[in-house]
Amino acid sequence: MSRFERGMAALQNIHGSAGQEVYEAVKPFDEVFARRMIENIGDVFSRPGVDLKVRLAANLGALVAQQSPQLKVHINAALNVGLSPDEVKELIMQMVLYCGYPTCIYALRAAEQVFSERPK
Amino acid sequence: MSRFERGMAALQNIHGSAGQEVYEAVKPFDEVFARRMIENIGDVFSRPGVDLKVRLAANLGALVAQQSPQLKVHINAALNVGLSPDEVKELIMQMVLYCGYPTCIYALRAAEQVFSERPK
Amino acid sequence: MSRFERGMAALQNIHGSAGQEVYEAVKPFDEVFARRMIENIGDVFSRPGVDLKVRLAANLGALVAQQSPQLKVHINAALNVGLSPDEVKELIMQMVLYCGYPTCIYALRAAEQVFSERPK
Amino acid sequence: MSRFERGMAALQNIHGSAGQEVYEAVKPFDEVFARRMIENIGDVFSRPGVDLKVRLAANLGALVAQQSPQLKVHINAALNVGLSPDEVKELIMQMVLYCGYPTCIYALRAAEQVFSERPK
Amino acid sequence: MSRFERGMAALQNIHGSAGQEVYEAVKPFDEVFARRMIENIGDVFSRPGVDLKVRLAANLGALVAQQSPQLKVHINAALNVGLSPDEVKELIMQMVLYCGYPTCIYALRAAEQVFSERPK
Amino acid sequence: MSRFERGMAALQNIHGSAGQEVYEAVKPFDEVFARRMIENIGDVFSRPGVDLKVRLAANLGALVAQQSPQLKVHINAALNVGLSPDEVKELIMQMVLYCGYPTCIYALRAAEQVFSERPK
Repeated sequence: MSRFERGMAALQNIHGSAGQEVYEAVKPFDEVFARRMIENIGDVFSRPGVDLKVRLAANLGALVAQQSPQLKVHINAALNVGLSPDEVKELIMQMVLYCGYPTCIYALRAAEQVFSERPK
Repeated sequence: MSRFERGMAALQNIHGSAGQEVYEAVKPFDEVFARRMIENIGDVFSRPGVDLKVRLAANLGALVAQQSPQLKVHINAALNVGLSPDEVKELIMQMVLYCGYPTCIYALRAAEQVFSERPK
Repeated sequence: MSRFERGMAALQNIHGSAGQEVYEAVKPFDEVFARRMIENIGDVFSRPGVDLKVRLAANLGALVAQQSPQLKVHINAALNVGLSPDEVKELIMQMVLYCGYPTCIYALRAAEQVFSERPK
Repeated sequence: MSRFERGMAALQNIHGSAGQEVYEAVKPFDEVFARRMIENIGDVFSRPGVDLKVRLAANLGALVAQQSPQLKVHINAALNVGLSPDEVKELIMQMVLYCGYPTCIYALRAAEQVFSERPK
Repeated sequence: MSRFERGMAALQNIHGSAGQEVYEAVKPFDEVFARRMIENIGDVFSRPGVDLKVRLAANLGALVAQQSPQLKVHINAALNVGLSPDEVKELIMQMVLYCGYPTCIYALRAAEQVFSERPK
Repeated sequence: MSRFERGMAALQNIHGSAGQEVYEAVKPFDEVFARRMIENIGDVFSRPGVDLKVRLAANLGALVAQQSPQLKVHINAALNVGLSPDEVKELIMQMVLYCGYPTCIYALRAAEQVFSERPK
């Protein structure tokens, strides 16, 4: 299994069809860069020893702290790997201790959008 | 059990003696503020439904993203709640995808200091 | 007067009807979290000894520095507690020294929107 | 009164001898840049219509949010223009709502250092 | 040539008609502030000794790192001073090493919008 | 030439002996991660079409904006690829327009340390 194949498998596992879409969106910008992105994602997320739920919780923390415009992608990913909507909510509320209310409310709104957009 | 007592229990559970030290350090600044801090920590971390390892992974993500001078406190906390040094290392390496190398290397050095300072 | 009532009074005083709206928006996400938010706001803003105009100036500084999507809420709050539009403008222009022009222009546009939306 | 003289007066008023030191420290790096810095500070802080205490509160908010290594300089400045140590403490504690605890504790420690270093 | 004239020339050179638009947009907010902005831009960009392409590369780095809502303005400026679209793309891809993927993808989308909006 | 060899060549070219030191420092943390870091650096900096001086100017912008503790490493790198100390100074002074004075002064001090530590 090549690094790229492993990365695409990780991408599918974590981001589902949204991951494929990001890859397709980045490819016209630069194909080599898009491939390296997939390989780097695969390098990280195929490493054993850490539960994917724990890994995605760390992503949530980082992207909330950054008020990232990509936050919704990672909330979806957290749900994809098995964190429940309630767990995602808990983690976002927890972030108020570390990022304050305005950032937390930004994240909370992103989560509500994700929850309402996902097929039940 | 009062909110404060619940908070002190959570603090002890997560931060161990370092938590008590932060509380004692903040108290002379403002006693009410120090107490509210403990209560707010208790409000979050006593909520059921999310594994403490998952909660601390989210903290790691946020504090790495912020290049927080408090990062070492939260690496210690991650170890206290049962994440292994290898899991902490994995999460920090994962952050390179979201925060880049310089921030990641800052975190990696903090982790190495924590690992070497903790009693085996 | 309970912490919650004191918080709602502070919220009304500072954020006016927008404060009520934020509370109503957060409540469906998590009612306890929404209540704690109000209580924490009350804990801070009901403390005597600092003029509310001074307090809201500090908020402006922080939210401009963060390029917060919540900035408009706090510009409105600054006006609610008695800072004049000219004072808000001065503070935003001052921030160029500490945050640079792009961040400052982001804030300046938020202020202009707030000024044009408020009833005269 | 030239822009530079006005700036030096504002610097003296706000930063006291520490302002002179910053100017002297920047001058060998680039004399024109150092002069422009003073002129820009003068341009902002000599504008009428906003109480210097309000202006410095906004600085505190911004520099706390940035976890700025220059925070101590601006805590000193806040005290120089007439904010009391208690007011500075209140503003820093207020920032927990907007920046979270780790950032707030960083600021709180900076304030304690400033308070202990200033001549009584 | 006054500082303002020099600044307007630099603005025209770097930002083209978009620079004029920013100036016109800021002027109603505060005319003196708008003029000072132009003068400060002129002070920096009229200094000899650094290629404008090198200068705009540094701007790109800073505004990508800040996830600035003004990023598109500076991508346009980079193209105006002679960086090719391919060079801009390379610099944005390079930023993944220092800012991570989500920030990089934000910048990449901004660049694609700029490329498609510019007259060929 | 393998990706790793290409990365080590780029590292040597850009970071000189400091690059080797960073690699050696990261290796005990995780050897695979250290190798991937080198490969990713090689992937970026071995791409043709952009002058290394332009590339390092972008790094300077990003790391100044982040107030990165790694800033000195990248100032050294900028000098290694042929930016003169005067060019580095110009770029740092330019950053005041985008990041404000406190951040700029932090960078200016880092640059002065680098200049004084480098062999003439």
